[in-house]
Amino acid sequence: MSQGLNVSILGGGSAYTPGLIHGFINRSQDVPLSRLVLMDIDESKLDTVGYVVRHMLQDAMPQCKLELTTDRDQAIRNMDFIICQIRVGGLQSRHIDESIPIKHGVIGQETTGPGGFAMALRTIPVMVEIAAEIQEKNPRAWLINYTNPSGLVAEAITKTSEIRHISICDEPMVLQESLGAFLNVPPEQLFFDYFGLNHLAWARRVYLQGVDILPQLRDTLEHTPLDKIEGLFGEEVLRDRKVRTELRNTLRIFKETGMLPSPYLQYYWFTDEILEQQIRSGRTRAQEVIQMEQEILAEYRKVAAGERPFETLRGGEWHADMMVGMLGAIANDTREVFIVNTPNHGALPELPFNKIVEVPALVDARGAHPLAMGKMPVEVRGLIQAVAAYEELTVEAVLNGCYDTALTALSCHPLVPSRKVAKNILDDYIAAHGESLAYLK
Amino acid sequence: MSQGLNVSILGGGSAYTPGLIHGFINRSQDVPLSRLVLMDIDESKLDTVGYVVRHMLQDAMPQCKLELTTDRDQAIRNMDFIICQIRVGGLQSRHIDESIPIKHGVIGQETTGPGGFAMALRTIPVMVEIAAEIQEKNPRAWLINYTNPSGLVAEAITKTSEIRHISICDEPMVLQESLGAFLNVPPEQLFFDYFGLNHLAWARRVYLQGVDILPQLRDTLEHTPLDKIEGLFGEEVLRDRKVRTELRNTLRIFKETGMLPSPYLQYYWFTDEILEQQIRSGRTRAQEVIQMEQEILAEYRKVAAGERPFETLRGGEWHADMMVGMLGAIANDTREVFIVNTPNHGALPELPFNKIVEVPALVDARGAHPLAMGKMPVEVRGLIQAVAAYEELTVEAVLNGCYDTALTALSCHPLVPSRKVAKNILDDYIAAHGESLAYLK
Amino acid sequence: MSQGLNVSILGGGSAYTPGLIHGFINRSQDVPLSRLVLMDIDESKLDTVGYVVRHMLQDAMPQCKLELTTDRDQAIRNMDFIICQIRVGGLQSRHIDESIPIKHGVIGQETTGPGGFAMALRTIPVMVEIAAEIQEKNPRAWLINYTNPSGLVAEAITKTSEIRHISICDEPMVLQESLGAFLNVPPEQLFFDYFGLNHLAWARRVYLQGVDILPQLRDTLEHTPLDKIEGLFGEEVLRDRKVRTELRNTLRIFKETGMLPSPYLQYYWFTDEILEQQIRSGRTRAQEVIQMEQEILAEYRKVAAGERPFETLRGGEWHADMMVGMLGAIANDTREVFIVNTPNHGALPELPFNKIVEVPALVDARGAHPLAMGKMPVEVRGLIQAVAAYEELTVEAVLNGCYDTALTALSCHPLVPSRKVAKNILDDYIAAHGESLAYLK
Amino acid sequence: MSQGLNVSILGGGSAYTPGLIHGFINRSQDVPLSRLVLMDIDESKLDTVGYVVRHMLQDAMPQCKLELTTDRDQAIRNMDFIICQIRVGGLQSRHIDESIPIKHGVIGQETTGPGGFAMALRTIPVMVEIAAEIQEKNPRAWLINYTNPSGLVAEAITKTSEIRHISICDEPMVLQESLGAFLNVPPEQLFFDYFGLNHLAWARRVYLQGVDILPQLRDTLEHTPLDKIEGLFGEEVLRDRKVRTELRNTLRIFKETGMLPSPYLQYYWFTDEILEQQIRSGRTRAQEVIQMEQEILAEYRKVAAGERPFETLRGGEWHADMMVGMLGAIANDTREVFIVNTPNHGALPELPFNKIVEVPALVDARGAHPLAMGKMPVEVRGLIQAVAAYEELTVEAVLNGCYDTALTALSCHPLVPSRKVAKNILDDYIAAHGESLAYLK
Repeated sequence: MSQGLNVSILGGGSAYTPGLIHGFINRSQDVPLSRLVLMDIDESKLDTVGYVVRHMLQDAMPQCKLELTTDRDQAIRNMDFIICQIRVGGLQSRHIDESIPIKHGVIGQETTGPGGFAMALRTIPVMVEIAAEIQEKNPRAWLINYTNPSGLVAEAITKTSEIRHISICDEPMVLQESLGAFLNVPPEQLFFDYFGLNHLAWARRVYLQGVDILPQLRDTLEHTPLDKIEGLFGEEVLRDRKVRTELRNTLRIFKETGMLPSPYLQYYWFTDEILEQQIRSGRTRAQEVIQMEQEILAEYRKVAAGERPFETLRGGEWHADMMVGMLGAIANDTREVFIVNTPNHGALPELPFNKIVEVPALVDARGAHPLAMGKMPVEVRGLIQAVAAYEELTVEAVLNGCYDTALTALSCHPLVPSRKVAKNILDDYIAAHGESLAYLK
Repeated sequence: MSQGLNVSILGGGSAYTPGLIHGFINRSQDVPLSRLVLMDIDESKLDTVGYVVRHMLQDAMPQCKLELTTDRDQAIRNMDFIICQIRVGGLQSRHIDESIPIKHGVIGQETTGPGGFAMALRTIPVMVEIAAEIQEKNPRAWLINYTNPSGLVAEAITKTSEIRHISICDEPMVLQESLGAFLNVPPEQLFFDYFGLNHLAWARRVYLQGVDILPQLRDTLEHTPLDKIEGLFGEEVLRDRKVRTELRNTLRIFKETGMLPSPYLQYYWFTDEILEQQIRSGRTRAQEVIQMEQEILAEYRKVAAGERPFETLRGGEWHADMMVGMLGAIANDTREVFIVNTPNHGALPELPFNKIVEVPALVDARGAHPLAMGKMPVEVRGLIQAVAAYEELTVEAVLNGCYDTALTALSCHPLVPSRKVAKNILDDYIAAHGESLAYLK
Repeated sequence: MSQGLNVSILGGGSAYTPGLIHGFINRSQDVPLSRLVLMDIDESKLDTVGYVVRHMLQDAMPQCKLELTTDRDQAIRNMDFIICQIRVGGLQSRHIDESIPIKHGVIGQETTGPGGFAMALRTIPVMVEIAAEIQEKNPRAWLINYTNPSGLVAEAITKTSEIRHISICDEPMVLQESLGAFLNVPPEQLFFDYFGLNHLAWARRVYLQGVDILPQLRDTLEHTPLDKIEGLFGEEVLRDRKVRTELRNTLRIFKETGMLPSPYLQYYWFTDEILEQQIRSGRTRAQEVIQMEQEILAEYRKVAAGERPFETLRGGEWHADMMVGMLGAIANDTREVFIVNTPNHGALPELPFNKIVEVPALVDARGAHPLAMGKMPVEVRGLIQAVAAYEELTVEAVLNGCYDTALTALSCHPLVPSRKVAKNILDDYIAAHGESLAYLK
Repeated sequence: MSQGLNVSILGGGSAYTPGLIHGFINRSQDVPLSRLVLMDIDESKLDTVGYVVRHMLQDAMPQCKLELTTDRDQAIRNMDFIICQIRVGGLQSRHIDESIPIKHGVIGQETTGPGGFAMALRTIPVMVEIAAEIQEKNPRAWLINYTNPSGLVAEAITKTSEIRHISICDEPMVLQESLGAFLNVPPEQLFFDYFGLNHLAWARRVYLQGVDILPQLRDTLEHTPLDKIEGLFGEEVLRDRKVRTELRNTLRIFKETGMLPSPYLQYYWFTDEILEQQIRSGRTRAQEVIQMEQEILAEYRKVAAGERPFETLRGGEWHADMMVGMLGAIANDTREVFIVNTPNHGALPELPFNKIVEVPALVDARGAHPLAMGKMPVEVRGLIQAVAAYEELTVEAVLNGCYDTALTALSCHPLVPSRKVAKNILDDYIAAHGESLAYLK
């Protein structure tokens, strides 16, 4: 790769972008960039973030040409990789997604439950459009999708398009990196025997040098105070209450079951206490994130204005490691193992053959080759199959623009207590989201 | 069958027994009895019911020898058919099963949800013991099991025994007979394209002369007042509020989905309103049934004392039609279609190969041959798979006597909102049921 | 069915037609005809056979109107049932099908091996055309197909058409009737645990009153001279050397394996000795059948000319029993068990979900509901799967008109020793059959 | 791995051993040995080969302690890796395996057809014994099995033992290395989309930098003279007529089908011409190999006697690359892709879940993780399924010591034309192999 890659980022005005660029800079030896296009519909954020990125590239990757644009066409043509991290409707829409279920006594969460359902209804049409545009204008490009709900988006793209595409989520990598940090071993030395759906997956066993370390980890945790455990995950964990709770809940589940779940399992496992906390708090996660984003952007602006030194910026590293690593594995054909969202093809024989599943895969220039993970433990099989059916119906509802199928889909979600509640939530979403859900007939 | 069959009824003291005997009398031409053994551990009920049965047989089947006994051995040896309708722990235990979940904000129901789970924990050990006794003492006998939870009991028997056995539930037949009555056609003319698990099953299509009548039925119901519909189902429906509600809810679901569900689906579909009603009522179904049973037994006693004429007795007909029909199909090798609980063997390819499923089967002297019902509609597939996993774990918990597996099983039930609630319910059950659940370690 | 059915027979000029009409006459109570259309492209045969049929109907079913026609349209419009027993290309083409493989050292047989392949290549295009014509002109009609190769024809029809259709083969019924005769019990009392593909199927167990009689039958045969066994199958068996050999070979296989195979299994099991015999004989079965047919038609003509009394005619009874029985089960919605060729849908989980398989099915006004037959014994599974793949490719070759796929299909047939031999045979077929295979590109 | 590995070679007296040691020497940086045990029952060969190996180690790996032994116990205890390359019965038995089928008009080949069947009958009992001994004496050791028939041996070991084990065959690696040589790229850059059973497998696609190169390769071969192609594979290919024929036949199949098959497919594809050639030649491959082995051992002896310089020795490189590479991936936990024989677990959903299949797998300290290869092309699916059934029965026959199952297994093999021929071959084998097959009852 003498020349460097042409890479674009859809949703490039995100506060996470500098973190991602940091990742490219760290690996500029094996994943060099010759052209970087940041595309966003929010010009103000694009300018702020663009300034920071330009500054970052100046010293570290001077040969890389930076372009800022609001024109998607420019971010699609001639690209080798199109990274998509858009958030359709922005964080305001997320707030709607999260707040409505709570009114109906149901968990309000970005990707799990009704919130993820609404996000899918809003996001899939746009993603399907982007995939079609790539197929038309630049069919040899790779779309690396990071936009949530990742599994549902991947399913819709796979059903409607022939483009080269992998959908990822940094959560499994967060798990791997956290565990590596905790065990004080390089995370890439851990092999995850991992299976499920995006945000509903488990590490059944984790091998280090061929030995499953989970039993011993479970023993250790029995005798370790939670504070000490948290400390090992670093400052960031301690600062953000949501992340800290997530960690605590995940460890509680692990202690009981011996398997290491996705942190999102907490919403199924501790449904009542989390719901109670959400009702009590009176504030959605979206609102917290809006504030966090504003703080970060404000800091960016200070840096841009020369009021603060550049070096203070940080964050989004795991996201970057996963994204740049994956991109490098494709570009350099290096056959590395990543946990990705990919068509099943027998990897999990108890789920439909063409369902998108989240499993370890070998990634190379050809894309993702999933590993055959065999049968799932019966204690999680039913939940996974139930959510798989919900997902299948949700994608069908969007692609057919069908209200009844959407209602059926939401009724099928394990966190929704009844058809009536499903209808109330769906109708409230349609009223609140306006134009973006008007396609449901 | 020149000689007549030897038939015993375990749980013969039930108030349903006379209805069942009525069924035998109606079909005494093709299913003649030469010996009838009623076995029960409750001598008082056995006497009362035995008196009534003796009276019934006197005129109608004088050649049939009646024996009343509290000794199971006598009801097993030399029998052709052993009908099992025992209720382990009696209706008092059912009251416990139903009342505890309500305290924890969960549906309290005999066979669905935690109630069915507790019933399985209490019942399976006894049923496994009975099956083992049959295998030892009379391996050529047929066990026709009617004891609930029917699917779970069948699964445990199949896993631990080689006896000839069919587990049935009269619910699909009730559906068939009701629909026949409503349409004014002989119910046996209806063919049910039916699939699922016991108490969680659907008629996807119902054929009359090769034409699916459900779409037209749905149209009709749109324009028919509910009162008129109820009227068609007869007096019994109108009298019992629970049955009436069940009917209404089932029709509501049918109107929305176009498939005719098991009435028990209401607990998943209208969970919140039923729970609210259960909390408000302050009375379990068990308590209602206890009262109903006492009234029936009181009537039996009056009949026995000559205070009322014999002819006034009635009830349990559907139960009898199904049971005697099934028994006749086996005894006479007539290959009739019944909906039964039977090992899957590919009938529903999206469930495990050896799972007990509820599907139409051809019944003959060899037992049940399930029909291949193909793939399930995605809108119910997930729920069925989730409950299948719960069932598999519940049976495993009982057979291994394992508390942890029991907790996992209950946590997996779609009606249980969290692991914590599951634990509270399970622990309350163990405390309340005492000796009968002491085997869980 | 007050009025009687409208039934047509495509290929009505066949010498088998009178036997079939005999079957209708025998069951005229429950399967009455009001109109019978015999259609054939061979006017001469149609006249002869038509005369005989007219004579048969005169006394026995005077209300039935008979029509003879060479116009397919007349045999499709307004019919309730269209029976198809055409033989595309006639027996002369069968002779080509059978003789060419022998030249290349391969079994020459009408439906098994290259012969069946050639027959499929010639027959499927016509059958697909007929199905399309039915769908256009009379979509509520039932096509009961008897044309070979029955499974392949059914697969092509199912893939290209929505018509109501069952493909049958009288072979399983011959097995059942023969066994009934041998055991001296009514054949319908036997229940066949039966699975496979058309002409490649097995009865794993045969139940009489719930007991598998195959083990005892095997014992009996050990101690019974073959002559005596053959005698039990009647005169017809003894007369036709081919049928006698088939019976002997089938019994040899049964003795070794304990399962009762389709007689066509002999071509896989005794390949070398049958091939040797075919080479030695220098005469194809087609040539024998041509002669037999001429003798029968000559006899018909004598009868028609008044030179022989009508009563001397006979034959084709099993064929008739199966056909009229099946037709009656559909017309009268009687839910009888027949072994038919039907989409798999899980009945045999080790074959593709939509493959046409030959299994017991419940037949009613809705068509065939296959029974779930479970896993196949490993000792026959591989052969069945291999032939299933050959069949799938053959149908694909015809529907795509693709020479290469045809060559691959034939190469995949277990009786074809090499790709080279496959090519030689295929090319010889194309040369010999001329126009009818010219569609392969 | 500061200390180096303890490795033993069962069958260490083989002429291939020096080649293997060469491989260890080449990779002594990442796969260092501290102790090497060569075990063989043939003391003479062990001495000769041992001398050569000692000489090789002297300079290249002086720290490695060499032991020669006839005692299996010494080669099992304390080992990290036990490499098994024994040949039960030696090449004389192979000659019997290969010559008997030819007498009956069937291909005589070491691993394919009856020859492989006989080899399995002779070899599996010994391998099962070895696995049991490892499990008892050194359960943490890895058995890397190279003994043929590799898939059948793996299946028997997996069914009877819990040891850590991978069975390999160098054939896929030969394919990969040859193709790399031909294309002039490092072979490890090629990714094989590969599936099947040992010696019956296909590369459906071969990716270089994410692009399937097979279509272009096919084009190239169309226009390349065979001599030129052969030249690219080096001198060794040209020298050995068998290898040259194999190459030619494989390329012929590739040209016709576009998939790159195992060279052993020629026995199914060109059955008649190879059989004819075998009959004409009057000499088995075993006899050729016996002579080749003697020549090599003679050369070794000359070297040992100082009559020739050491440097002239060579051969067995691919074998060594595969073996040492695999061993290194396990020892160093490096997650490399190798094509191995491994339990299916959904990798090929059309084969039984626990069948041993040959597919790409990620190899690390935990062993082999198969990739999910999806559905097989229908044109090879049937043959693979047929051979899978044969294999399953063969292993069952050995483990149960059952003559009838063995006969059924051999009858099921696609290359065996009839049950009678199967019986003749099996009986001849039993007579010729004497004691080693006496366990079949």
